[in-house]
Amino acid sequence: MRRLNVALEHVKERGIECGIVLKPENIFYLTGFFPSSQAALLLKQEPLLLVSKMDAALASAGCVEFKVFEKLEKELKLKYKNVGIEKKYANIKFYEKYLAGKNIQDLNFIEEMRKIKDKEEIEKIKKAIKIAGDALAEVADALEGKTEREVAAMAEYAIKKRAGAAFEAMVASGKNSSIPHHMPSDKKIKPYEAVIIDIGAKVGYYNSDISRTLNSNPDTYGAVIEAQRAGIKECYAGNEISSADSAVRSVLREYALEEFFLHSSGHGVGIEVHEAPKIAKDTEGKFEAGMVVTIEPGIYKDFGVRVEDMILIGKNPKILSKKVKPC
Amino acid sequence: MRRLNVALEHVKERGIECGIVLKPENIFYLTGFFPSSQAALLLKQEPLLLVSKMDAALASAGCVEFKVFEKLEKELKLKYKNVGIEKKYANIKFYEKYLAGKNIQDLNFIEEMRKIKDKEEIEKIKKAIKIAGDALAEVADALEGKTEREVAAMAEYAIKKRAGAAFEAMVASGKNSSIPHHMPSDKKIKPYEAVIIDIGAKVGYYNSDISRTLNSNPDTYGAVIEAQRAGIKECYAGNEISSADSAVRSVLREYALEEFFLHSSGHGVGIEVHEAPKIAKDTEGKFEAGMVVTIEPGIYKDFGVRVEDMILIGKNPKILSKKVKPC
Repeated sequence: MRRLNVALEHVKERGIECGIVLKPENIFYLTGFFPSSQAALLLKQEPLLLVSKMDAALASAGCVEFKVFEKLEKELKLKYKNVGIEKKYANIKFYEKYLAGKNIQDLNFIEEMRKIKDKEEIEKIKKAIKIAGDALAEVADALEGKTEREVAAMAEYAIKKRAGAAFEAMVASGKNSSIPHHMPSDKKIKPYEAVIIDIGAKVGYYNSDISRTLNSNPDTYGAVIEAQRAGIKECYAGNEISSADSAVRSVLREYALEEFFLHSSGHGVGIEVHEAPKIAKDTEGKFEAGMVVTIEPGIYKDFGVRVEDMILIGKNPKILSKKVKPC
Repeated sequence: MRRLNVALEHVKERGIECGIVLKPENIFYLTGFFPSSQAALLLKQEPLLLVSKMDAALASAGCVEFKVFEKLEKELKLKYKNVGIEKKYANIKFYEKYLAGKNIQDLNFIEEMRKIKDKEEIEKIKKAIKIAGDALAEVADALEGKTEREVAAMAEYAIKKRAGAAFEAMVASGKNSSIPHHMPSDKKIKPYEAVIIDIGAKVGYYNSDISRTLNSNPDTYGAVIEAQRAGIKECYAGNEISSADSAVRSVLREYALEEFFLHSSGHGVGIEVHEAPKIAKDTEGKFEAGMVVTIEPGIYKDFGVRVEDMILIGKNPKILSKKVKPC
C-alpha cells in the first residue's frame, strides 16, 4: 500500500488525472498482484485494478480494489484529458486507440522507484541467488560428455524443483562460448573445454542472474576477473553509475581486450532480470543504497569468458553472489 | 528470400518508403535470423538488417544484407516521410523519438503472412508436438506424491534435453486446477486428484502447446471433450473462424457450463505460442489451409478441466496432436 500511495503522490504532483499502468511487473510492484493476462491499474483518486475473468480468483491478493472486466476496451475509454502511461511499454496501437489528442505523460517514475530494493525484496533476491548458485555447483561437476542442451536442462531442473527460472539457462562450450547469447545446442562438451554458464532463479517474482566460466584461458580469465573487481569497487552509494562501466573498460583496455567486450557492464535485477539502472558509459545518475546490479565483463574472442556477480549497493559494495562456486 | 520479397511487395503497394521491423519473431520470419538483442530490419528498396555487435557473428545466417550498428539510435533517424511500423509492437517512446510527424502505416501484414504455415514450418511444429507429447506421457505416469513444481520441472527437463521449451510448464492439481494460469506450487499431488498439465516445446523457433487433464470429474470432462470435438469439426478451410468458438460454447451451454469457460477457444501457434488467428467470438475472417491453431475449451469450477489440441487447417481438420496421451 505504501508503494501505491507514493505512486499516487507522483501522479498528483504531475497533474495526471489518471495513470494507466499496463506492465504486469509494475502492477505487481504497486499492488502485490501479478496479472497472468490482460490487466490495467488505474492510478486516480480512487485507484482501481482491472482484471480479466481468468485472474479474478487471484486479484484479491492485491492491496487495491479490483473489478473484473468483460471487455477491457470499454473500461479504457477514459474521459480524462491528462493521462499517464508507461511510454516504453504501451504500443502505438494503444496510443491511437485510447490516448490520441490527450496530454500524456510518462509513468517512468514507477521503474525509478523499483531501482531501490527494500529488505523483503533483497531477501527474495538472496534466495534466488542461493538456488541458482546451488544449481551451478551441481552441473559444474557433471559437464563432461554431456551436450550443452543436457547441461542446460539439468541446471534448469535443479532450479525449477525449488523455484522458478529467471530465464532459459545458457550453456556455451568451446567455440560457442564466443557468442554472447548462444542458445544451448546438441554439441557435446569436451574435457577441459571452455564453458560459459549463465543462469538465474526466480523467488516470489524476484530474479537472480549469475554467470561463470569454466576451463577458460587463464590470461583472458585473469583480465576479466580483474576488470570485474575494478567495476565492483565502484559500486557504492553516491558514486556515478557510469564509473563502474569505465573501470571495467579501462582494465580490459590495458590488456588490449576492450574491443572484444560486446555488451554493457551490467544491469539492475529485481522483478525483471534486466531492469534499471543499466551499467553503461552513457548512464546518468548515481548509485543509491538498495540498488541491486550485476557486474559482468565478458570477452568474446575465439573463446568466450564471462563472469557475472550480483552486487547490493550500500556504503560499500556487497557481493551477494560471493558464495557461488566456481569462483 | 521469398517471404522478404512478398513483404517488400506489400510495402511498395502501400506506398511505404521504409518499413521498420522491430519484433524479433517477424525479423526471423522474413530473414531466417533470430536476433538475440536489439535489431531492426529496414524494408526498403535495398533491405537492410541492423544488428548489435552481440549478434554480428550470427547475422550472416539471415538472407539479407546486414550492418552492425554502433548506436541503433543513429541508424533509425530516417529521412523517409512514409514509414511502416509494427503498431502493436513499437512503443510510444519509439513513436515520439523516431516517428512523430511522419505518415505511419501498420506492418501488420507480416503477422497475416505468418498465419499460413508452409511445409517446413509444419514439420517443425510436428516435431515440437512429438517432444511435448513424450514429456507429457513421461510425467503423467509419475505424478503421485510429487509436488506440482517437481512435476513441472520434470516435464521441462524431458523437453529441454531434446529441444527448447515453448513456455514454463503449468501443473495445477486439486483446487489449483480451477485457476486457468496457475503457477506450479509446492503442493503435493494426491492420488486420484484432478491435474491439468499444459506444456509445449520449441523446435527451430516453432512451438507446440498442449494441455491434458488427468483424474477429472467424468461429467465435466465429457462435456469439455464434446465441446472440443465440436470446435475441431469447424476447423476447415473456408469456414468462419468464429464458428469454432461458437461450436465450443454451444456445447458447454447445453451442459450449463458456459459461464465457467473463462478464455477464448484457441489461438494460432507458430513462432509465437500465441499468434493470429485468435479463435474467439469476435474474430473476423475465415480459416485458410495451412493455419495451425489450438482448440482448448476449459471449465474452471471447484476443479478445472482443460483439453488442448493442435489442428492443421485443410479441406478437413487434421489433429496434429492426436497421438499425445493421455487422450
